[in-house]
Amino acid sequence: MSITVVGSVALDTVETPAGKNTEGLGGAAVYFSLAAQHFAPVHLVGVIGEDFPDQHVRMLGAKNINLAGLERAPGRTFRWTGRYHEDVNERDTLDTQLNVFEHFHPKVPEAARKAPFLFLGNIHPSLQMEVLEQTSHRFVALDTMNLWINITPNDLRDVLKRVDAVVLNDQEARLLTGEVNLRDAAHKIRGMGPHIIAIKKGEHGGMLFCEADDEIFAIPALPLKKVVDPTGAGDTFAGGFMGYLATQEKTDFMTLKRGVVYGSVMASYTCEAFGPDKLIDLTADQIQQRYLEFKKLMEF
Amino acid sequence: MSITVVGSVALDTVETPAGKNTEGLGGAAVYFSLAAQHFAPVHLVGVIGEDFPDQHVRMLGAKNINLAGLERAPGRTFRWTGRYHEDVNERDTLDTQLNVFEHFHPKVPEAARKAPFLFLGNIHPSLQMEVLEQTSHRFVALDTMNLWINITPNDLRDVLKRVDAVVLNDQEARLLTGEVNLRDAAHKIRGMGPHIIAIKKGEHGGMLFCEADDEIFAIPALPLKKVVDPTGAGDTFAGGFMGYLATQEKTDFMTLKRGVVYGSVMASYTCEAFGPDKLIDLTADQIQQRYLEFKKLMEF
Repeated sequence: MSITVVGSVALDTVETPAGKNTEGLGGAAVYFSLAAQHFAPVHLVGVIGEDFPDQHVRMLGAKNINLAGLERAPGRTFRWTGRYHEDVNERDTLDTQLNVFEHFHPKVPEAARKAPFLFLGNIHPSLQMEVLEQTSHRFVALDTMNLWINITPNDLRDVLKRVDAVVLNDQEARLLTGEVNLRDAAHKIRGMGPHIIAIKKGEHGGMLFCEADDEIFAIPALPLKKVVDPTGAGDTFAGGFMGYLATQEKTDFMTLKRGVVYGSVMASYTCEAFGPDKLIDLTADQIQQRYLEFKKLMEF
Repeated sequence: MSITVVGSVALDTVETPAGKNTEGLGGAAVYFSLAAQHFAPVHLVGVIGEDFPDQHVRMLGAKNINLAGLERAPGRTFRWTGRYHEDVNERDTLDTQLNVFEHFHPKVPEAARKAPFLFLGNIHPSLQMEVLEQTSHRFVALDTMNLWINITPNDLRDVLKRVDAVVLNDQEARLLTGEVNLRDAAHKIRGMGPHIIAIKKGEHGGMLFCEADDEIFAIPALPLKKVVDPTGAGDTFAGGFMGYLATQEKTDFMTLKRGVVYGSVMASYTCEAFGPDKLIDLTADQIQQRYLEFKKLMEF
């Protein structure tokens, strides 16, 4: 089954203890798509500027990614600049230039409207709603961020009512609910609409809360030899998670747990190189091998 | 097989978002002993002052804990006062009074000298060495803290050469080695002597690194409904870990992994009440039930 994703396409300038990557390919929709397309066909909905390198468009188009919804608008591409600390779990945003993203209104092409899976990447909740209203779908997941939780809480609540799953980091889950305990936070989010809550914790792995009170899954992160650049790991996680779900007949607890493992597998690869480089040429064998590494890491 | 532990016996005053506990029973050796005695006989080596309540001595003595090495010295008992933040993963030490602990030199009684397992709780490394030299043992583990890593690095290095395992938190492992990546940190610690490295990460669970490069185990923390007081969770972890090992014939990777799970089980109980209260009356059934909860939490 296919997946539609809406989100940012960016040129990222990133400095980490491992080096610097200037104006590299980035953006939530890119990381998501490059991860998910290993599992299922993806429709990417987003916007780029006139300056966006053709080579990136060609690379994405050569993958299992339909770019009919990738609009090229007059102006410059969205840019993000960040610097990671010696401890790469912390980073500072140095600069954000919305550029063509500022006046973006997603237009979902015909084929993308019917994709059974929809991922609403971290954009203004009113844009997420615009996408929801253009599509029919079986399963919708949403990401968001501190900014929207703080400045557009009502818009966010409206979208939350209509999604099946949220993929948030732990800070966002706490901010959204006012609960420190993640179990309490998940319980409150469930009251807002979504019945599946996936919480990303960076180097500490992730958690999954489903409908029943005891349907909780926790996974550590794979202890990598070297973390080069964690940018996009969260979106990659979402891509692996949704990608795996799109290959399955149902979304029961066990399927969702395996989705979390595949999401973690893909995210671990993203961290090992600048930008989404590692995701591009990944083989099915490499994905399966790391899935088994997680099995080994957690079995007792 | 029996276990000897040396460490602090304290009266703790603790404030958490759940309330306040004034001059409650505490100390690393107490948490360790109360956890480990559910698995194997424990010899406790430590010191208390004249003011230490008899009821605590009676309670400990009624358990599977030999108190021949618990010395009562003139003066006041060691006291620690701390306050936890709204996010109970953070705390401030408000006051530490060494009292009788200041001039403590551990005297290990005859029976305790021959215990096959020895745990050197977090005390001055020269005292840990004094204990090592009074004992014969099959398996030794050590805990330490930032203070000793900073002010007595050479003494600490001398003890590290002679132990099998260390039980540290992630910050301590990073400080001890200068490595941010815990895999690199474990590798460096292995070069200092111990071949087993257990790293505690509080609400994020724990990790175990053994001899081979791919012998890595990671476990999330059990998502508790309510964390009342995490004081002593690390020492409780060590008690459950060593306690389980003391019931086994060997310390191979699988046995050590299960030890980490039992350590996490015991630590989860400690967090659910003030002080070591939950550990005191725990049943074998409750321990086994939570072991299975970990299985369920991590299986996919």
